[in-house]
Amino acid sequence: MKHYYDQIERINYEGTQTNNPFAFRHYNPEQIILGKTMAEHLRFSICYWHTFCWAGTDMFGSGSFNYPWQSSADPLSNAKAKADVAFEFFYKMNVPFYAFHDVDVAPEGNSIQEYINNLSIMTDILLEKQQQTGVKLLWGTANCFTNPRYAAGAATNPDPEVFACAATQVVHAMNATHKLGGQNYVLWGGREGYETLLNTNLRQEREQLGKFMQLVVENKYKIGFNGTLLIEPKPQEPTKHQYDYDVATIYGFLKQFGLEKEIKVNIEANHATLAGHSFQHEVASAIALDIFGSLDANRGDPQLGWDTDQFPNSVEENTLVMYEILKSGGFTTGGLNFDAKIRRQSIDKYDVFHGHIGAIDTMALSLKCAAKMIEDKRLDQKVAERYADWDKNLGKDILQGNMSLQEIAQYSLVNNLQPKARSGAQEQLENIVNKAIFG
Amino acid sequence: MKHYYDQIERINYEGTQTNNPFAFRHYNPEQIILGKTMAEHLRFSICYWHTFCWAGTDMFGSGSFNYPWQSSADPLSNAKAKADVAFEFFYKMNVPFYAFHDVDVAPEGNSIQEYINNLSIMTDILLEKQQQTGVKLLWGTANCFTNPRYAAGAATNPDPEVFACAATQVVHAMNATHKLGGQNYVLWGGREGYETLLNTNLRQEREQLGKFMQLVVENKYKIGFNGTLLIEPKPQEPTKHQYDYDVATIYGFLKQFGLEKEIKVNIEANHATLAGHSFQHEVASAIALDIFGSLDANRGDPQLGWDTDQFPNSVEENTLVMYEILKSGGFTTGGLNFDAKIRRQSIDKYDVFHGHIGAIDTMALSLKCAAKMIEDKRLDQKVAERYADWDKNLGKDILQGNMSLQEIAQYSLVNNLQPKARSGAQEQLENIVNKAIFG
Amino acid sequence: MKHYYDQIERINYEGTQTNNPFAFRHYNPEQIILGKTMAEHLRFSICYWHTFCWAGTDMFGSGSFNYPWQSSADPLSNAKAKADVAFEFFYKMNVPFYAFHDVDVAPEGNSIQEYINNLSIMTDILLEKQQQTGVKLLWGTANCFTNPRYAAGAATNPDPEVFACAATQVVHAMNATHKLGGQNYVLWGGREGYETLLNTNLRQEREQLGKFMQLVVENKYKIGFNGTLLIEPKPQEPTKHQYDYDVATIYGFLKQFGLEKEIKVNIEANHATLAGHSFQHEVASAIALDIFGSLDANRGDPQLGWDTDQFPNSVEENTLVMYEILKSGGFTTGGLNFDAKIRRQSIDKYDVFHGHIGAIDTMALSLKCAAKMIEDKRLDQKVAERYADWDKNLGKDILQGNMSLQEIAQYSLVNNLQPKARSGAQEQLENIVNKAIFG
Amino acid sequence: MKHYYDQIERINYEGTQTNNPFAFRHYNPEQIILGKTMAEHLRFSICYWHTFCWAGTDMFGSGSFNYPWQSSADPLSNAKAKADVAFEFFYKMNVPFYAFHDVDVAPEGNSIQEYINNLSIMTDILLEKQQQTGVKLLWGTANCFTNPRYAAGAATNPDPEVFACAATQVVHAMNATHKLGGQNYVLWGGREGYETLLNTNLRQEREQLGKFMQLVVENKYKIGFNGTLLIEPKPQEPTKHQYDYDVATIYGFLKQFGLEKEIKVNIEANHATLAGHSFQHEVASAIALDIFGSLDANRGDPQLGWDTDQFPNSVEENTLVMYEILKSGGFTTGGLNFDAKIRRQSIDKYDVFHGHIGAIDTMALSLKCAAKMIEDKRLDQKVAERYADWDKNLGKDILQGNMSLQEIAQYSLVNNLQPKARSGAQEQLENIVNKAIFG
Repeated sequence: MKHYYDQIERINYEGTQTNNPFAFRHYNPEQIILGKTMAEHLRFSICYWHTFCWAGTDMFGSGSFNYPWQSSADPLSNAKAKADVAFEFFYKMNVPFYAFHDVDVAPEGNSIQEYINNLSIMTDILLEKQQQTGVKLLWGTANCFTNPRYAAGAATNPDPEVFACAATQVVHAMNATHKLGGQNYVLWGGREGYETLLNTNLRQEREQLGKFMQLVVENKYKIGFNGTLLIEPKPQEPTKHQYDYDVATIYGFLKQFGLEKEIKVNIEANHATLAGHSFQHEVASAIALDIFGSLDANRGDPQLGWDTDQFPNSVEENTLVMYEILKSGGFTTGGLNFDAKIRRQSIDKYDVFHGHIGAIDTMALSLKCAAKMIEDKRLDQKVAERYADWDKNLGKDILQGNMSLQEIAQYSLVNNLQPKARSGAQEQLENIVNKAIFG
Repeated sequence: MKHYYDQIERINYEGTQTNNPFAFRHYNPEQIILGKTMAEHLRFSICYWHTFCWAGTDMFGSGSFNYPWQSSADPLSNAKAKADVAFEFFYKMNVPFYAFHDVDVAPEGNSIQEYINNLSIMTDILLEKQQQTGVKLLWGTANCFTNPRYAAGAATNPDPEVFACAATQVVHAMNATHKLGGQNYVLWGGREGYETLLNTNLRQEREQLGKFMQLVVENKYKIGFNGTLLIEPKPQEPTKHQYDYDVATIYGFLKQFGLEKEIKVNIEANHATLAGHSFQHEVASAIALDIFGSLDANRGDPQLGWDTDQFPNSVEENTLVMYEILKSGGFTTGGLNFDAKIRRQSIDKYDVFHGHIGAIDTMALSLKCAAKMIEDKRLDQKVAERYADWDKNLGKDILQGNMSLQEIAQYSLVNNLQPKARSGAQEQLENIVNKAIFG
Repeated sequence: MKHYYDQIERINYEGTQTNNPFAFRHYNPEQIILGKTMAEHLRFSICYWHTFCWAGTDMFGSGSFNYPWQSSADPLSNAKAKADVAFEFFYKMNVPFYAFHDVDVAPEGNSIQEYINNLSIMTDILLEKQQQTGVKLLWGTANCFTNPRYAAGAATNPDPEVFACAATQVVHAMNATHKLGGQNYVLWGGREGYETLLNTNLRQEREQLGKFMQLVVENKYKIGFNGTLLIEPKPQEPTKHQYDYDVATIYGFLKQFGLEKEIKVNIEANHATLAGHSFQHEVASAIALDIFGSLDANRGDPQLGWDTDQFPNSVEENTLVMYEILKSGGFTTGGLNFDAKIRRQSIDKYDVFHGHIGAIDTMALSLKCAAKMIEDKRLDQKVAERYADWDKNLGKDILQGNMSLQEIAQYSLVNNLQPKARSGAQEQLENIVNKAIFG
Repeated sequence: MKHYYDQIERINYEGTQTNNPFAFRHYNPEQIILGKTMAEHLRFSICYWHTFCWAGTDMFGSGSFNYPWQSSADPLSNAKAKADVAFEFFYKMNVPFYAFHDVDVAPEGNSIQEYINNLSIMTDILLEKQQQTGVKLLWGTANCFTNPRYAAGAATNPDPEVFACAATQVVHAMNATHKLGGQNYVLWGGREGYETLLNTNLRQEREQLGKFMQLVVENKYKIGFNGTLLIEPKPQEPTKHQYDYDVATIYGFLKQFGLEKEIKVNIEANHATLAGHSFQHEVASAIALDIFGSLDANRGDPQLGWDTDQFPNSVEENTLVMYEILKSGGFTTGGLNFDAKIRRQSIDKYDVFHGHIGAIDTMALSLKCAAKMIEDKRLDQKVAERYADWDKNLGKDILQGNMSLQEIAQYSLVNNLQPKARSGAQEQLENIVNKAIFG
C-alpha cells in the first residue's frame, strides 16, 4: 500500500489532556459505556463519495482539490488508486466501517457490460482491502442520480427503460454489498421526485416506486442477503420535491406497499433540518414508528437552505440524538456514517483528518453525555410520571376501547371534569440535560 | 334581524365592466363551467372565528376592532348578537356555506353542563338562521386548543381527563353539526404535538390520537352522521411540532390505525407553505392518496414563518390548485372555506367585505383558468405521452410483477439499454398555463 | 416586602458538585476571568415584560398563568403588586440589573395625563425598590406597539399625532430611565415597518424615523442623560417587514441620518436568526461597524419562524458570541438582558427560576469557554497569519491607495501572479473551539 | 453565421390570438405604454452564462446538454462557436441587449497574458457581432468566483495577490465593456463573504472591499466609461454569508466608503427572496434609497433555499415590481436581464426559446398591468391621503425640526391627543391591483 497520508500513522485515543490534534480526545473505542464498548455503540463509518470522489466543486466554483487519483486518463487506474487511499484513510482513522455507491468505487464505463465488469473487478479489490485492514462495509448503495439518464428520476422515471437501468445498478450493487459482507443496503432516492407537477403523474410515480421497493425486498431474500434495507429521507434538492421527504412520509409509503416490516430508514441530520425537523425529531419519530435503522451523521447550517454536509460538531444536538438511540436499545445493523465533506477551502491534505476526528469526538462525547442522561434517571421518571394516569382506570378504559366517545363525554359530565393543570417543566428538563453535558 | 352592515344589500355578480367595489367581477354563481355552475364547483364557505371572534389582536398588540358583539358582560347575549351579524354577513356575501368551532358560536361556560346548554341553545338559533337565510353548514368542529386545559394537547394530553374533555366537546360539536345538516366534520389538532421531546412520549401520544380518531369514526356511524370526517394538517404553531404535519404524514397515521377509508384531509394553503410545500403539492398529494376532502382557502406570506391567514388573492397559485381538483372530479362534500382574516389595521366596517369579495373572485377566476387548462388538452396530453411507455411491454411487465429485479437487470444487459433522454418541457408547460390565465 | 416565591431565599453559586436545582453551577459572580469578575463581564439583567406581564397567551391560546398581580380591577394596585414580586425575584435571582417598558411598570391610563401620573408614581416606587435591593436599571424603553393606535407604526405612522404620542411616551420613559440611573435607553421599533407596500411610502416613513431618532439624541443631551442610546434590530413580526431589520440595515440608517456615533444596537439572538443570521454574525458585524451596544440573550427555535423567546441554553452558540465580545473589550454600558419567557405550559411558580438559572449558567459557562479560546491563542494567531500579507508591500500599497486599479493589473501581469492556495482550516478551527468548550 | 436553431427565424409579436408557441403574445416592442415604447421601458437582455455556458449540471448531476460548442479541445474555438450561437439566439429572440462575464466569452488561459489576449480577441469578435445584429451590451462583468483561487473571496481574500488577480480581471472586463459600448458595469461579489467567522477578520475584509470599489470608481473615470457601476446583492450561496447581503446592507456599505452617489444596485429576484425579502421590497427599497440601477429578472422557488434561477413567470409578482419602477420614472441605463436558466431536464434545443418567450411576455404583461395601476390613480391617491397630515401643521413642524421631543410631548398633553384610527385598507388595495391585472 502506497502511503498518501505519510505524516500520519493512525489516530488513537489520547484523552483530553493531549495537545495532539491528530488524536481522539473523547473516543476511546474500548471504553465501556452502559455495558457496551464505545466502538460497539457508535459503529463509525466513513463515506467514499465525499471523502474521495468529490473534487471540491460547488455550483459556482470548479474543483479545488486536485487529487492524484483523479488525474489519470484511465478510469480504472483512478479507481484503484482511490481504493488505495481510501483504505489507507479508513485504517488510519481507526473506524470499523465504510460505505459506498457503486460508481464511487468503480467507473461507470460506456455500456452496462462495462459497468458490470468494472464493479466486479473493484469488488474483488475492496474485499481484499477489507481483509487486509479489518475495515468492514456498513452499507452499499447505487448512485441512480448523477448520470443524466436519471434527470427525471430512476424508479420514478417516465421511461421504464430508465427504471430498468436503475434496477440493473441495484442488482449489482446489492450483489457487491452481499459479497463484501455489508450489514445494510441503502436506497437513496436522489431524484425520486419532481421538478414541476405540470409534467408529473404523482400516482403513477408512486406506484413505480412502490413496485421498485417490493422488487428490491424480493431480491434481498433471493440472494440471501441478511442485512437491513434502508431508505434515506430527503425533502428536496436537487429536485423541487422528493418522495422520500421525511420519516413520516416514508412510513406512509411503506405502509401503502406493505413494506413497513422490511425497510427501515437511514436518517441524515442535514436532510432532517432541510425538511423542517430537528435531527432528534426524525430519529425519535423513526423509533416510535419502529423503522429506525441507521444514521448519516453530519450537520447543515441553520441559515442555509441546501445540503452543506458539514461534519457534526454539536455535542448539544447529538447528545439528544444519542439519548433517543440509547433509550431504544442502540443500533443493530446500523451505525454512524459520516456523510460529510470538508469545506472547499480545506485544501490541506490533512484537513480531512481534522474533519473526521472532530466528528468522531463529537459523537463519542455525545454518547457519554446521553449515557449520563440515562443514568440521571430524572428525565425518564418525569416522562413516566407525566403519563402515569394513562395506566389508571380512565386512561386504561379509553385506550383499551372500553368506552365509546359518548360514554367518555357522559363520564366527563357526571364528574364535571376540571383537569388540574401540570407544568410541562421544560426549563427544568433542559437544565438537567445541560448538567449531563457540561457538569 | 338588526342590520350591522347597513350600507350593503347583497354582493352580486356585475362582471368585469363594473366599477362597484362591492360586486363580484368574476364569480357568477349560475355560470356553467365544464358542465356545472360555479356555485356547485366552488362551494364557498365563510368562517365564524376569524370573521366574528378574532378581536384584532396579535402577539404584540391588543384588539383593534371593538366589535359591538364583544361588549356585553353576558356571554350568551354576545353569542346571539354575533350570530345575528354573522348570518347577516353570510347572506350578504351570497355564499352557500359557513363553518364554525363550538366555542365560536356558544360560550364555554363555567362547567361542562353550562357548555352543553349554551351549545344547545345556540344550535337552535343557528338552525333557525340557516332556514331564514338558506345558508348551510359546510362543517363544524370543536376548539380543543384555546382553553389552558389543552396547553399540552387534547387527545394527546398526558392527562386522560383532558382527553375526556376533548371527547366531550367533539361529541357535542358532532351532534350540533349533525343537527345543522353539516356536510363534514373537521378535526383540527391545534395542539396535538409537542413543545419539547424531553417531556414527550411520542409513541404513547400517537396511540392516544389513533384511539381518539377511531372513537370519532365509530361515533359518526352511531349518530347516523352522513358527512365526511376531515383532519386538517398543520406542521407547527403554536406547538414546536404538530403530529398532523402535512398530507403525507396524515396518510401514514391513517394507515397505521386503519382509518384511510374513513377520514380525509381539509387542506389549508398557509399550512401547506409552513410545512415547506406548495398548496398545489398538498392538494395533488391528497388526491393521489385518495384522501382529498376540502380546502381552507387563504394565503400565507412567503417571507413570514407564521400563519398569517390572509385572503387568497393569487390567481396564479389557485389556478393550479383548481386544476388538480377539476382533474380529480371536483369537490364532493368539501368546499372552499375562507379561513382568512382581515389585517389588524383593517378597521373599517366594510373591509371584511373587500377581503371576501377579492377572495371569491380570485377563486372563481382560478376555476375559469383551470377549466381552460383542461380544455386546452395539451397539458394532459403531454403528461400522458410522457408516461406512455409504461403501458407498453417492458413497463407493463414491470408494474404487473412479471419480472424480478434480476430479470430486469438481465433484460437491460441483453438489450444494452441506453434510454433516450426526453425533455421535461417545463418552460413550455408553464407558458401553456400562463396562456390559460392571461390569454 | 410580601414574599411570593416563599420557598426560595436566594440563588447562589454552589459549583458543579451540587445537586440543588436552585443554585448556580457555573455562575460565580466574584470569580475572576481574564482580569474581571464574572459579574462585571456578564452584567445580567431580567426583563419585566415576559417575566411579570405576559399572561401565558399565544395566538391560539388564552392565558395559563393566573398571576395574582393581574387579578385586581385597579391597574395601579396591580402595578404595585407586580413591582413587589418583580423586585423580590430580581433580588432572589442575584442579578445586578433589570429592564422595563413604561407600560410594563405603570398603567397606560385613559389619557396622556393619567399615563404621566402613573409612570411618575411607579418611578418613585421603583427607585425605592432599587435602593432597597441594590438592583440597578440596565435600560428603560417605551412600548409604542401594543396599543391599537400604533397599529400602523409609531414614529413611522402616517398620522403625525401618533408620532406625537410616541414622542410623549419616549420623553417620559427617558425621564424615568434617567431618574432611575438607567445605563442605557433602548428604542425598539416593534411596528416600525409595513404590512403591505401598497399603502406605504417608504421614503416618507424613513424620513420620519430618522427625524425621530435625531430628536431622541437631542433630548438625551438636553436632559443630561449619560447612558447609551440603543436600537434593537428585528426583521419582521408582527409586521411584514420592519425597518430595523438587522445590524447592517441599522448601520445604513444611522449613516444616512448622521447618527452612527450616537446610537448603538441591542442585539437579540432570536431576532438575529429570524433575519437569517447567526447570533454570532450579528454581534461580530456590530463590533466591526463600531455600533455594538448590548444583548437581549435568548434563543429561538431553528425550526420555527417566529419569536419564541426561549431562555438561552446553548453553550456552543453563546461561547462564540462571548468570544466576539471578549475580543472587542467587553460590554461598556450594555449587558446581558434575558428577553426570554418560560413556556406556556410552565405553570409551576418556580419554573421561572429554572429558566433564569439555566440561562445564567449557560452564559457564565460560555464566558469561561470563550476565555479559554482567547487563552489558547491559536485561533487569534491563525487569523492573524491568514491576513499577514496585507501588512507587507503589495497589501499595504493597495490599502493605502498607492496603486490604481490599472497599476495593480499591470503588477499582476508583470509578475504573472499565481497565488498559492491556502487552507481555510475550518475543521481544525472548529476542533479548537470544541476543545475550549468540552476539554 | 452558421445556424444552430435552424427551425426558428425570429420571435415576433403575434398577439394573444396566436397559437404559435414561438411568438410573443404580449410583448409588442413598438407598442406605446405611458408615452414610451415597450422596448424602451423593458430593455430586455439575455445572459451569456446560463444560456450558453452552463452544461446542465447540478450538485448531484453531471451535464445533460452536450452543447456542440463545448466539445472542442481548443477553448478558443469553443468560445468562437459559442459566440456564433449566442448572437444567433440574441437576434432571433429579438431583444436589444445581452450581458456577459469575461470568462463566459473568452477562455481563462493558463496565464494572465493568455487571459488578456483571449479576451481581446473575443472582444473584437463580439463587437463585430454587435454591429451585424444590432444587439447591444447591457453590461459586462468579471467572474471572480469560479476559479479555485477565489475560494476565499476576490477583493476580500486574505491574500493580496488574489485581490490583484481580481483587479486585473476587472480592469480588462471594464475595458471590454467600454469598448463594446456597455451601458453598465456590474460587480458581483460571488464569494465576497465568509464560510466561518472563526477564520475571518470582518473589519479587514470590509476595508478591502471598500478600497476595491473606490478603485473601480476611480478607474471608471480614468478610462472615460460613462455607464453606471452596479453591485448585485446576494445574501449567501455558495458562501455562508455574503457581504452584499441585500439592498439595505449595500446602502450602508456605500455610505461608509462614500460611494452612494457612484454605485447603484442590480437586483435579482431570486437573491431578494433568499435574503428573506420580496422582489418588490428590494426594488422599492433601492428606489427609496436612490440606488436603484438594474434588474436580474428571474424567479426562485418559494419552497427551495438555493438559487434556482428560473425564468420569471409570475405576472402578479412582476406587476408590483414594474409598478415601483414606473412610479420612479423607469430604467435609465439599467434594464431587465434574464439571469435565468432552463431546467436540467429541458434538453430540447428549443426549450431555451420557450423559457425566454415566457419570461418576456411575463414582464411585458406586467408592464401593462402596472401601467393600469398608475392610470387607475386610486392607489396613488390612497397613499397620498394616508400621509396627507404630514403636510399640515403638526407634521411639518415635526419634520422641519421646529419642535423638540419635549415640545411634541407637551403638545400631546395639552391637546390630550387621541389619534383617530384609520383603516390600512389592505384588502381593498389588493383588489384594485387584481383588477389591473385580471380586469
